[in-house]
Amino acid sequence: MEAHLARTIERYRGSSPIYEMIRYHFGYDQYGHAKQGKRLRPQLLLRTALEEGGKLEEALDPAIAIEILHNYSLVHDDIEDGDRLRHGQTTIWAQFGIPHGINVGDALCSLSYLTILHGTVPPERVVGMLLVLHEANLQMCEGQGTDIKFESLASVTMEQYLEMISGKTGALFSASCHLGAIAAGCTPERARAYARLGRAYGRAFQIRDDVLGAWGATDVTGKPSGADLARRKWSFPVVWALETPAGADREIVAAAYERGSRLDERDVEGVREALDRIGARAAADEAHDRALAEADAIAREAGIDRGGTIRDFLAQGARRVA
Amino acid sequence: MEAHLARTIERYRGSSPIYEMIRYHFGYDQYGHAKQGKRLRPQLLLRTALEEGGKLEEALDPAIAIEILHNYSLVHDDIEDGDRLRHGQTTIWAQFGIPHGINVGDALCSLSYLTILHGTVPPERVVGMLLVLHEANLQMCEGQGTDIKFESLASVTMEQYLEMISGKTGALFSASCHLGAIAAGCTPERARAYARLGRAYGRAFQIRDDVLGAWGATDVTGKPSGADLARRKWSFPVVWALETPAGADREIVAAAYERGSRLDERDVEGVREALDRIGARAAADEAHDRALAEADAIAREAGIDRGGTIRDFLAQGARRVA
Repeated sequence: MEAHLARTIERYRGSSPIYEMIRYHFGYDQYGHAKQGKRLRPQLLLRTALEEGGKLEEALDPAIAIEILHNYSLVHDDIEDGDRLRHGQTTIWAQFGIPHGINVGDALCSLSYLTILHGTVPPERVVGMLLVLHEANLQMCEGQGTDIKFESLASVTMEQYLEMISGKTGALFSASCHLGAIAAGCTPERARAYARLGRAYGRAFQIRDDVLGAWGATDVTGKPSGADLARRKWSFPVVWALETPAGADREIVAAAYERGSRLDERDVEGVREALDRIGARAAADEAHDRALAEADAIAREAGIDRGGTIRDFLAQGARRVA
Repeated sequence: MEAHLARTIERYRGSSPIYEMIRYHFGYDQYGHAKQGKRLRPQLLLRTALEEGGKLEEALDPAIAIEILHNYSLVHDDIEDGDRLRHGQTTIWAQFGIPHGINVGDALCSLSYLTILHGTVPPERVVGMLLVLHEANLQMCEGQGTDIKFESLASVTMEQYLEMISGKTGALFSASCHLGAIAAGCTPERARAYARLGRAYGRAFQIRDDVLGAWGATDVTGKPSGADLARRKWSFPVVWALETPAGADREIVAAAYERGSRLDERDVEGVREALDRIGARAAADEAHDRALAEADAIAREAGIDRGGTIRDFLAQGARRVA
């Protein structure tokens, strides 16, 4: 898969500076030492296809397409969030400026779809795959728009939060499983069941990621510990804590989030301890487990993931993180 | 076409703030007084389809798709260029911030393709149309990347300039004619001839636009007179002037463009007069006419645009501008 991704990216060349920046982003050529992403989404896609008896070579192009689509969203998110580092490498906008950052993200978006259109996907599956990818992209933008709006809100309900992550994270997880099933030749109904399964796993993943964003050590997350809290991100534990009845610990969190500025290290530590005492970490772990149980129920009812390929893959990831 | 565009946009709703911003951008709902764009690209597409005996209703979805794709590029270009006004309305990023601006542009990009995928285009034409749109999008990013890079260059050759506008402007003009021909059921070869025709017209259009950017009055362009010169944009007249032999007028232009900062009104006036004296405006007019002649030759050789529908439409636009 790594080799196929590299070949796909290398196929596109030209006098425009976008190609050098795209290779920079993926850590190719002279930049070859960059740490790679986890490739979670394409792995999810390939495992779904294999679980359903599909051929690896028929699932490779959509796997690369979803990884490139994910990277387009990362390049734009890094600008939107002001992040200057990813995987230990200076982000595109921080290296080349915001205009190039926006434009290179746009180019990656089109490259994602062109991977399907220029690839070896059987013609009768192309339209269905593109539809899944485009709808996932729109849902991702819906979720991202809501997340940006959250920054200016004084409070966010659990319902709003769950809807936001369903778009921002769930859409691509869902599309990964959906595309894997299409690549394996599943019926549309069966493929849609995989889409629902992927969305449930996406929710579990995001809640776990939120816990890491608050409590994770830098060597696991690659980010400063408590980075999400410092930026007053509306994550699961915080949204949950602010929905508990009034009390001293709830007030600590509320007061920190009502402030208009970044939290310093001491504030972050105070919020984290309050979240722990109030039971927000335990609540997040429970919500994570509920999302996994929901995924199990979806799989059982639809009779999918019978070999447990997807379940084991994601459980393994969760264990590694824990 | 306007009504179909409005219906297409209105079809997409949800709790995400992106939809209100998209309606704001198009001047719908409470923002209904915004001046609309010229709708040049969808008109080009529809006229191509009609010229080839296609049905209007089969060309409407691709026409809307190309207009939305154009608007995605405008929303991102406005951030990249720092433009705060378009058609007399505050641009998305200036109104809602850069993060929302990037994200709303992304959403428009996906809406463009979804217009084809959710619309009434006959299934056998969907893949071909999406391929044209995605390749045009990538070429547009190539051209835009080159244009951004130009800002940091001390000189730009005519060859570099023509390649840049072929992507930045030519790609969507080309796609408009290409899609119109596909919508009318032309053979792939005939449709590709229309694509070449559209690219030639795109070059003519961009050179004319460059002349307006230097000499156009505000009431024609909607921008301050000489805006492109003030920002030291590499336009046709400037690139042409700097390729002439050394001389006093060439030096005035070169000195102004070598400066690292925005030009003030007096400098702009000085550069404009030097460009006039050196013959750059006349050269641009000639290059514009040559591009039109090239378009004529393409049409004649391929036996397309026999009714002159496209030619008359674009000539009319050029006359109005003159």
